[in-house]
Amino acid sequence: MNRHFRQTGKNSIPDLFPMNRIKRVDRPTTAVDDEKVQQVDERDGGFHRSGLGQYGPRLRREYKRFVPKYPLSASLVAMAGNLGNFVDDSSNKLDSANTAWGVSSWTPMASVAPSKAPLPKDPKELARHLKEVAYFLRADMVGICRLPRYAVFSHSKVDGAPVELDHQNAIAILVDQDWPTAAAFNGSDWISNSMSFLAYSHSGFIACILADYIRRLGYPARAHHAMNYQVVLPPILLWAGLGEMSRMGDTVINPFLGPRFKAAVVTTDLPLAPDKPIDFGLQHFCEKCQKCARECPSRAISSGGKIEHNGYERWPLDVERCTTMRVGNQRGAGCGTCIKVCPWNKPYTRFHRLINWSMRKFPFLHRFGAWGDDLLGYGKPNDDLKWWFDLERVDGKIQLPRARGKSAE
Amino acid sequence: MNRHFRQTGKNSIPDLFPMNRIKRVDRPTTAVDDEKVQQVDERDGGFHRSGLGQYGPRLRREYKRFVPKYPLSASLVAMAGNLGNFVDDSSNKLDSANTAWGVSSWTPMASVAPSKAPLPKDPKELARHLKEVAYFLRADMVGICRLPRYAVFSHSKVDGAPVELDHQNAIAILVDQDWPTAAAFNGSDWISNSMSFLAYSHSGFIACILADYIRRLGYPARAHHAMNYQVVLPPILLWAGLGEMSRMGDTVINPFLGPRFKAAVVTTDLPLAPDKPIDFGLQHFCEKCQKCARECPSRAISSGGKIEHNGYERWPLDVERCTTMRVGNQRGAGCGTCIKVCPWNKPYTRFHRLINWSMRKFPFLHRFGAWGDDLLGYGKPNDDLKWWFDLERVDGKIQLPRARGKSAE
Repeated sequence: MNRHFRQTGKNSIPDLFPMNRIKRVDRPTTAVDDEKVQQVDERDGGFHRSGLGQYGPRLRREYKRFVPKYPLSASLVAMAGNLGNFVDDSSNKLDSANTAWGVSSWTPMASVAPSKAPLPKDPKELARHLKEVAYFLRADMVGICRLPRYAVFSHSKVDGAPVELDHQNAIAILVDQDWPTAAAFNGSDWISNSMSFLAYSHSGFIACILADYIRRLGYPARAHHAMNYQVVLPPILLWAGLGEMSRMGDTVINPFLGPRFKAAVVTTDLPLAPDKPIDFGLQHFCEKCQKCARECPSRAISSGGKIEHNGYERWPLDVERCTTMRVGNQRGAGCGTCIKVCPWNKPYTRFHRLINWSMRKFPFLHRFGAWGDDLLGYGKPNDDLKWWFDLERVDGKIQLPRARGKSAE
Repeated sequence: MNRHFRQTGKNSIPDLFPMNRIKRVDRPTTAVDDEKVQQVDERDGGFHRSGLGQYGPRLRREYKRFVPKYPLSASLVAMAGNLGNFVDDSSNKLDSANTAWGVSSWTPMASVAPSKAPLPKDPKELARHLKEVAYFLRADMVGICRLPRYAVFSHSKVDGAPVELDHQNAIAILVDQDWPTAAAFNGSDWISNSMSFLAYSHSGFIACILADYIRRLGYPARAHHAMNYQVVLPPILLWAGLGEMSRMGDTVINPFLGPRFKAAVVTTDLPLAPDKPIDFGLQHFCEKCQKCARECPSRAISSGGKIEHNGYERWPLDVERCTTMRVGNQRGAGCGTCIKVCPWNKPYTRFHRLINWSMRKFPFLHRFGAWGDDLLGYGKPNDDLKWWFDLERVDGKIQLPRARGKSAE
């Protein structure tokens, strides 16, 4: 399924992410108690709480600058912020007024067309089409599921209002955070936030266009991306067959991208056949590997066993420690050390494809695989590949980082 | 150069577009008389003229609908249109007012920072860095040149005002129009415009972010993309070493993407080492091949020799015929038949890489190559790969195309 369809036939090109080779199962590999899981309040997120000062005055200050303090992530988050206006047809309200301000006028994103387009009736055919549209729009991976009610935020962090979203289906769009950069960085240096916002902005861009397209076909649709979510991602990624829950806690790991992606979602009432969850042996792998727990600079990741939290079976994560590192990091901008060191964070070579296959096939190799990953030096920064400049914006001026050579706070 | 840098080293992945293998030359392979070339008025473009009614009342009507009549291109052009507001810091003028209208507030794109960032002095290092940023932002190919004065429009089509742009350098960003779709379509069916606007919107997205980043570093920069240009592309693509002039007239062909790309540009005063023009033997190839001239449904492409026009040595193109087909097409939306049939429009396989190399190395094979391309069936639609629906918006309603099965007007 997925990417495979458009790679078949005479004019084929190699399929980077052969998700059709991955075992499908009826339910996610970690228990999700559909009756027990409660909706999440967007205001309870770690970043939002640090901005409110709930993790202390230093983090409250740093929250405002931890992304824009590095110029490339500042550019990416500015664009992503503007994409927050294009998730649905609310930009309709802007059409003409702005011309007077000397910029081009806005092109309103479409409202739901008053009549439905003459589409095939088969939800499988529609699902395949929508995935093909997303791949055409340069998504790296796409999956579809029914939208679980518990994946919708209870309240918005913007105004505290209850979130109203009753769409039936969710289309999840993954975008890679860039392998060469992931190979180069040390996990928590100056490029880290830019990697996140690269994938946030591009997946959001794709989702906004895809949702607009569905509305033009006559069906409700809304894009959800980092700068304007109404849904939480992990349950959607699990049900859409894009990954399994990992030791990193809130992070879903994909068999080909590892944790090196961000996702955006389109929710819609267009009838779509859902994908099935996947099982590539990650639960056993994470049990044995523990590299992320060992390397996490804030000791937020546990090396122990799973717990049950809000109806989910999962590994615990100390959100306050994780957020404190990402927001408060003075030797870089953000942190993705767990992404960096995860053995599933790999490039698209034949060699890695073979290892990938053997890990999926022979779970008894997991411990050996994690050991070999260390031995081959994966998880270490590759300075030869470093392409960015270390810079820090302080008091409105871009300078060399203050903390060069100093140890982390 | 180009993409190669970030693919080297231990963690390398295959380089899809090894531009470092292409021969570099001091001047473009077609004569450009720097003294003679005049600036172009944006109002003289074929699309603009058809919108003004200069090609008759039917084309004037069709101009308004030829992109949005297909829902996917409507979505892409809506987003691309909005990107027209983010080419520079003019969105600064929008910041707070819009919140009152119930949508998120705008995140102003950056103005030029008042002080320059502490960057390396070497323009080569800066050029390499900027290219790496563009590749990180998911550009397919990047090249840099000095901005020739004649590449700047004399007047804007928006208000007829003289264009003021005196930046020193231009960074050109190419985005692929998607090989699987190019293999599937017939050259002038319903997906054609979407392929253009896929590449227009994505290259524009990247250019807007890149220009914003440069301004944050303290240097003037402006993005130019399909929905807000101040420059003409062909001379920039030639000087930046991204392609050669082709038989298609206004179209520059790249050795790996062929004509299957669109470009956006960032102009800036950041000191950057320019690339050199390339020579991969296209002038001889286009002389022998002539496939585009043979297949062009509007007979706009000449099978004759080159002419001199406005100081450029080039093959002539009948712009009115070309525009009439693209705007007036009733059996599809737009036209890219020349892109479809060009033998340089190929996927990234080892086989095609080998053919590519032999064509560059042995010009006496050109005639044989074009003949073999026909023989292998390239340029024909591959229905097995078709993933889009044929739809047409007529009087506000999306329906099956009116002209199904009918011959072209």
